[in-house]
Amino acid sequence: MTIEDLSARQRAFAAARAWERWHTPKNLVMALSGEVGELTEIFQWLTPDQAETAYADPDLRARIDDELADVLLYLVRLADVLGADLLAAANAKIDRNEHRFPKPAPLTD
Amino acid sequence: MTIEDLSARQRAFAAARAWERWHTPKNLVMALSGEVGELTEIFQWLTPDQAETAYADPDLRARIDDELADVLLYLVRLADVLGADLLAAANAKIDRNEHRFPKPAPLTD
Amino acid sequence: MTIEDLSARQRAFAAARAWERWHTPKNLVMALSGEVGELTEIFQWLTPDQAETAYADPDLRARIDDELADVLLYLVRLADVLGADLLAAANAKIDRNEHRFPKPAPLTD
Amino acid sequence: MTIEDLSARQRAFAAARAWERWHTPKNLVMALSGEVGELTEIFQWLTPDQAETAYADPDLRARIDDELADVLLYLVRLADVLGADLLAAANAKIDRNEHRFPKPAPLTD
Repeated sequence: MTIEDLSARQRAFAAARAWERWHTPKNLVMALSGEVGELTEIFQWLTPDQAETAYADPDLRARIDDELADVLLYLVRLADVLGADLLAAANAKIDRNEHRFPKPAPLTD
Repeated sequence: MTIEDLSARQRAFAAARAWERWHTPKNLVMALSGEVGELTEIFQWLTPDQAETAYADPDLRARIDDELADVLLYLVRLADVLGADLLAAANAKIDRNEHRFPKPAPLTD
Repeated sequence: MTIEDLSARQRAFAAARAWERWHTPKNLVMALSGEVGELTEIFQWLTPDQAETAYADPDLRARIDDELADVLLYLVRLADVLGADLLAAANAKIDRNEHRFPKPAPLTD
Repeated sequence: MTIEDLSARQRAFAAARAWERWHTPKNLVMALSGEVGELTEIFQWLTPDQAETAYADPDLRARIDDELADVLLYLVRLADVLGADLLAAANAKIDRNEHRFPKPAPLTD
């Protein structure tokens, strides 16, 4: 399973249900935002310590996986509808971040 | 470039800068949410037609790629910190969606 | 009912339940963000025309009121916890916006 | 200054610039979400302790006030465009919350 497979699967899923008409860029950005809101709600009242161990709890783990999945699915679908290459964009962004935030020099004596 | 490569690259990036201490689940959920907010801002005042063609404009394309990248990077980093398998979670979610929203029967005569 | 009354009522509500310990700035920002996500979900698949008339539908109206309320309640609570004066801040921001976006000159002949 | 004054001022501001056409429910929900994203970005990397004292710092205070203002302004504008009564909705929601989360019985001896 790669991100390209996921994107193809999402595209086929939408096509089989004639949902492409709803999958406009604005609607998908809103859907992505809504799912990030649901992910946020899982963590909002947890203490930092509780948040660190949340994923070890089977119930929380299932809820987190479900929301992480929804976020990725709408992100991948949005990129597909736009014609964007998510992985290339992210890789290029890390390149820029490497320049923007240079590694500290190693401590030497 | 795969999503696993991206995740490994992000992990190394954070480690080289000793940023792991900031990359708590709550902070990363907030960062993800902030980046989705920036993506939303690109599209908020566009008409539906303008949003459909936004990615064909070189300036908008660069801005959209930049925000899509940031969203993916924080999502991948959050999954890595939690120990979640993003692609497996997303694939399992499409499986559930296939049951939840069955394909309409094909039209026959 | 004023925004100050609402803020006082929220403060008393939290105090009566000993919820102040959960109402940290970070948690409240996350809660605000989660509620905006729920509001977004109501509108995400509506066409622009459907969104214009959504509030005339009794069921949608109740859901929208509920989410608008949650957004305002967490915003008011966050401002109270921080010690911020929401109305003064918003009024000062419109002042700045008046300068930033001057009114177009009236058309004259 | 009341929330009604703020709403009237926002309405006049939009009318004077002929911005009503952009102030559709979907666009305003997106704008609200974008501003909450900017507020989130101020707090995302702060430790809980730093977040508690952020508002005492003059620079952070100005930035926080600016984003709180933007969130309130778009929320008020959205409610006005929809025809919703924000304060009434919020007050009714606290009524429901009073029933949903009853006060713990007072400790007696």
